[in-house]
Amino acid sequence: MNEPAVPFGDGGLVRLRLDLGYDGTDFYGWARQPTLRTVQGVLEDALTKQPPGASVQPPVVVAGRTDTGVHATGQVVHVDVTRFAGGTRDRRRLAVDADGVPDVGQARYRLNRALPADVRVFDVRRAPAGFDARFSAAERHYEYRVSDAAWGVSPLRRRDTLTWPRELSVDAMNEAAIHLVGLHDFAAFCKRREGATTIRELRHLRWERVDEHELVLHVSADAFCHSMVRSLVGALLYVGDGRRGIDWPAELLALGDRSSVVAPAHGLTLVHVEYPPDEQLATRAETTRNVRSTGPVDQRPRK
Amino acid sequence: MNEPAVPFGDGGLVRLRLDLGYDGTDFYGWARQPTLRTVQGVLEDALTKQPPGASVQPPVVVAGRTDTGVHATGQVVHVDVTRFAGGTRDRRRLAVDADGVPDVGQARYRLNRALPADVRVFDVRRAPAGFDARFSAAERHYEYRVSDAAWGVSPLRRRDTLTWPRELSVDAMNEAAIHLVGLHDFAAFCKRREGATTIRELRHLRWERVDEHELVLHVSADAFCHSMVRSLVGALLYVGDGRRGIDWPAELLALGDRSSVVAPAHGLTLVHVEYPPDEQLATRAETTRNVRSTGPVDQRPRK
Repeated sequence: MNEPAVPFGDGGLVRLRLDLGYDGTDFYGWARQPTLRTVQGVLEDALTKQPPGASVQPPVVVAGRTDTGVHATGQVVHVDVTRFAGGTRDRRRLAVDADGVPDVGQARYRLNRALPADVRVFDVRRAPAGFDARFSAAERHYEYRVSDAAWGVSPLRRRDTLTWPRELSVDAMNEAAIHLVGLHDFAAFCKRREGATTIRELRHLRWERVDEHELVLHVSADAFCHSMVRSLVGALLYVGDGRRGIDWPAELLALGDRSSVVAPAHGLTLVHVEYPPDEQLATRAETTRNVRSTGPVDQRPRK
Repeated sequence: MNEPAVPFGDGGLVRLRLDLGYDGTDFYGWARQPTLRTVQGVLEDALTKQPPGASVQPPVVVAGRTDTGVHATGQVVHVDVTRFAGGTRDRRRLAVDADGVPDVGQARYRLNRALPADVRVFDVRRAPAGFDARFSAAERHYEYRVSDAAWGVSPLRRRDTLTWPRELSVDAMNEAAIHLVGLHDFAAFCKRREGATTIRELRHLRWERVDEHELVLHVSADAFCHSMVRSLVGALLYVGDGRRGIDWPAELLALGDRSSVVAPAHGLTLVHVEYPPDEQLATRAETTRNVRSTGPVDQRPRK
């Protein structure tokens, strides 16, 4: 479990919100690991090497942990940094303002200079009171990209697009998807974790053909359990190419037995995380913490 | 110089047209080289290893030769293959039809299986009479992609998008572009080649902002001389960020002195090659050959 969010300004800490994107191809997922290259690892290293003004307190806390090969264009994290109390000259050197808070424009520039090209920080700002990147999040949006061209996938999109060399029916997949939307126990589409609930509210699940051979699934929920999006995609693709009937995914959902069809990671991208209005951030975080933390095991939302 | 196109069917040869795309990042350009990985090299190797039905006669002839790092989504080549004259069983094994002509569906499948993922063949068909991928081409379309975000380029688009971390004015660049369109001597924007003409007809040159920080230049001409698109882009970017006036590119054109501002290769993609109607293919090829081949030196259209 993460510690509860440090109250803003307490202990001389300032909380920053970072918006970032990454190409997941060459990362072993989000979570820091001792010997593998992960997004959290390179981000924390960059924060430590090029502190945004003042001293950083890892770990960073992320809105949506992503598996190996999964990408992000709209990831959000928070990180607590030490408010700097030194003199004017040091403040200027460290690019902190008169309150000792990092200059967020400088912080972004320094961070991106220290980061590899497959991670970019789009924005750094002082987080509003009560903000927690993980627990304040109200909705997570993912996209899954597929090419159903007989020849495969366009070389320039091959890193974030799955090849499915059988023609897919968007209509059939969307008809099947309707029955999955709503508040359900998604055990059939979740990798089991001891003591963790698999009840989620799936709010949107819709395929769109964006080009002759290119399809995108738009999917959003309050949160996703582990491998949930990829399991939903796997089931829908079997409907789309006609190997399974339209009712099959709903049957899997009702049965609750783990579906064995999990689509590959590289088609998946976290595109957006929604937060409630500032005045509801703290309440939202408190509620989420209570709902999800029913056992001793880490239950951070995962896709 | 290439040999003139072999008349269709002559000497038992059948001409195939291949449409293909590639991610140019890991290639040393189009043209085959003894020790370097090039698109022509891997394509010819794949054709030789997995012949589309009958025996292939390299070299393949390409519509638009691309430099190191340049991509294609709409490249066109032709290749001559030997018409197969054996028995029914061998025809089936080699996937050729009753006339001994390769089954184009099978040919595409075999080729893509033999090619690396950064090259895909979208289509293989029997070329119409008089077709020459290079000399029959009437117009070539390129796109150049730029991100002017202060934070750089979105990680998933970094392979085909230039980072220009200064805000660009699409209006200023388009105003400057107007004066470059038309039939001109583009010596200022061409890498000199002994004996080669630098007169080209630039038909379209227009920037479009496709997303908050993402710009695309659409450019087309009958043909481009070497490094012409990248030199045009370089000049326009200096106008776009305000370092040069709107008249500057037109002044460069009029002066004819080689412009030193050449934009990097990786933002550039060949997106489409246009051919005249079938009945004009042979005439078009003959005309082009006469216009461009004014000296002893290879003058194949290049960008």
